[in-house]
Amino acid sequence: MKLLLGPGPSNVDRRVYEALSRPLVGHLDPEFLEVMNEIQHLLRYTFRTQNRLAIPLSGTGSAGMEAALVNFVQKGDPVLVGVAGLFGERMCDIVQRCGGRLARVDADWGHPLPLDSMERAIRTHRPRIVAVVHGETSTGVRQPLEELSRVTREQDSLFLVDAVTTLGGVPLEVDRWQIDLCYSGTQKCLSCPPGLSPLTVSDRGAEVLRSRRLPVQSWYLDLTLVQKYWGAERTYHHTAPISMNYALLEALRIVHEETLEARWSRHEENHRALVVGLSALGLEMLVDPEYRLWSLNTVKVPPAVEEERVRQRLLRQHDIEIGGGLGILRGKIWRIGLMGTSCVRENVQRFVEAFAASLQAEGFPCSARDALDQAGQVYKTRDA
Amino acid sequence: MKLLLGPGPSNVDRRVYEALSRPLVGHLDPEFLEVMNEIQHLLRYTFRTQNRLAIPLSGTGSAGMEAALVNFVQKGDPVLVGVAGLFGERMCDIVQRCGGRLARVDADWGHPLPLDSMERAIRTHRPRIVAVVHGETSTGVRQPLEELSRVTREQDSLFLVDAVTTLGGVPLEVDRWQIDLCYSGTQKCLSCPPGLSPLTVSDRGAEVLRSRRLPVQSWYLDLTLVQKYWGAERTYHHTAPISMNYALLEALRIVHEETLEARWSRHEENHRALVVGLSALGLEMLVDPEYRLWSLNTVKVPPAVEEERVRQRLLRQHDIEIGGGLGILRGKIWRIGLMGTSCVRENVQRFVEAFAASLQAEGFPCSARDALDQAGQVYKTRDA
Repeated sequence: MKLLLGPGPSNVDRRVYEALSRPLVGHLDPEFLEVMNEIQHLLRYTFRTQNRLAIPLSGTGSAGMEAALVNFVQKGDPVLVGVAGLFGERMCDIVQRCGGRLARVDADWGHPLPLDSMERAIRTHRPRIVAVVHGETSTGVRQPLEELSRVTREQDSLFLVDAVTTLGGVPLEVDRWQIDLCYSGTQKCLSCPPGLSPLTVSDRGAEVLRSRRLPVQSWYLDLTLVQKYWGAERTYHHTAPISMNYALLEALRIVHEETLEARWSRHEENHRALVVGLSALGLEMLVDPEYRLWSLNTVKVPPAVEEERVRQRLLRQHDIEIGGGLGILRGKIWRIGLMGTSCVRENVQRFVEAFAASLQAEGFPCSARDALDQAGQVYKTRDA
Repeated sequence: MKLLLGPGPSNVDRRVYEALSRPLVGHLDPEFLEVMNEIQHLLRYTFRTQNRLAIPLSGTGSAGMEAALVNFVQKGDPVLVGVAGLFGERMCDIVQRCGGRLARVDADWGHPLPLDSMERAIRTHRPRIVAVVHGETSTGVRQPLEELSRVTREQDSLFLVDAVTTLGGVPLEVDRWQIDLCYSGTQKCLSCPPGLSPLTVSDRGAEVLRSRRLPVQSWYLDLTLVQKYWGAERTYHHTAPISMNYALLEALRIVHEETLEARWSRHEENHRALVVGLSALGLEMLVDPEYRLWSLNTVKVPPAVEEERVRQRLLRQHDIEIGGGLGILRGKIWRIGLMGTSCVRENVQRFVEAFAASLQAEGFPCSARDALDQAGQVYKTRDA
């Protein structure tokens, strides 16, 4: 079995695979309605929210992004997007496709959004929506949200957060941080196969939805229709991906059993051990320590090393997947995911060892022994 | 395990469940690219097409419907929809959401579209797209397509066909019938869990896509982007639902091993046996014999019988799911699916027996013995 340490999917627990292949029932069967209820309950737990609306959309994380925008942006609405990587760019694309009036604040890839520019833009444009990415999967930056949320709320804008790479692995507080629209994917820190997009909407968001003048341009992602299927009415909209929902339920149960707090600690600790190990190998992280995303670690490719060859060695000789850079970071970084089930000490050790061997084979001198020793110290601190 | 004889999902072969829970690899892993290649190859076989573009979209059949419309309709384009049930209505809704100029021809629910009205409307409106549903899941009508295709082509319109309930169970000839846009779902006659939407586009369709003036309003379903991921470029668009694609591949292999022709015969034969059995129970079909959809059989609820109670008895006491009527047919019909893996002689017999018992329990006099005998004759004809 391959060890998945790329930008997602992550490895999946045996319990989730078993759930995935449970015999189907009809999508309006009372048994499945129970599954739907429990999923919504556990999504509220995982998002840290009391929102009524907390459901998995029948598409991948990108469908969640589209739903979070098309349902709330009407033609001509001003929308501010913070762009610090590929997924911020994608939001801009979607805003334009739904006729929003786009304003954007850019950060250099590898850095968080500059708070002062965001504040200024929010006060100037008074956008209906302020949209940012919590964990930029293309750069490995964790965007701090609390200050941004405060400024957004002052202008009475809706706060939209992409939590694809953070939900279930990195602290995310939908209610406390007053996030109005939040979506994620299943294949990252939740360690469920890709195919669904958990999404939650605050009461303020739901009110905006109710007061729309124009129909949502997507029928498939129209939340007013989707929530009637997931709500008390159980009105048929589309046939839910039943097996995927079985799997998601099991993955969410695992999150709940471990508790979010323990999960966050686990992600932090393994991230720290990995960074220490990478540093001992003589590599440099792309992101400043305080903004590093625990679930996705970006490390610079040293001069004279070919990025792709190292990755292929890892995959072919060690059965380990990691990711390369996207866009302007192509060839310049590796992206190493430590998400959900994949994020354990044994995997960090196995990876550091295999990575050292692959780097050496590509002519980069480094010592696996040193790296493993130093990474081990991180765990010892806890064990002590 | 429940016997799924509703309007979908149908029962799933053990091989497909096993594929579903195969360990994940990354969505750009060479192994997964092989899976993607074989899926496209087998989709061409199943759709009976040489189209270059034949892929599964990462959403259910409804996402396929939306994709087939939003990619090809531009603001102001005239679109003609034939409406003979709920799914025709849904197409009208989507056409309006993407700014198409809608014209519609209606048929009474339970009947196919009147060819003369369709011809007149096509000549009058000269629509860019003529859209019809091949198998109306809400009524159990199979819409003949060959004549419609001829008239559509004469006016140089694109011919769009919803094959959600027919692909893999009922003859469908994408190339021979000159269908330009065709989509389906996985959970009906392909007997894979719901979650993907196979879709194919003719070269004429692809040309319309290339010559669009405006961006497609959906980013998630933008076929120009999606096909770059599925084509030679393998450009990242979104993370494909990997497990669902494993399952679809296995389901398509099963279709190919059986052959389409054998599959169509099997669906026809079991449909005929079911109809004979239902008739022997004293029930009347909704649809005239020549337009009956083999994969979804609609039968009228006799006076003084409560539709829902019979369905609940079947589910609770016999572990069999069937469907009730939708929209204006609510309470008036049952919808009995015989799709893919579910469509075998043993299931027809088990259903007829359980249905007879449930009807009797609700005060409707009928004989299971007679119905089974007469249904059995249909198979004997073949065996002889």
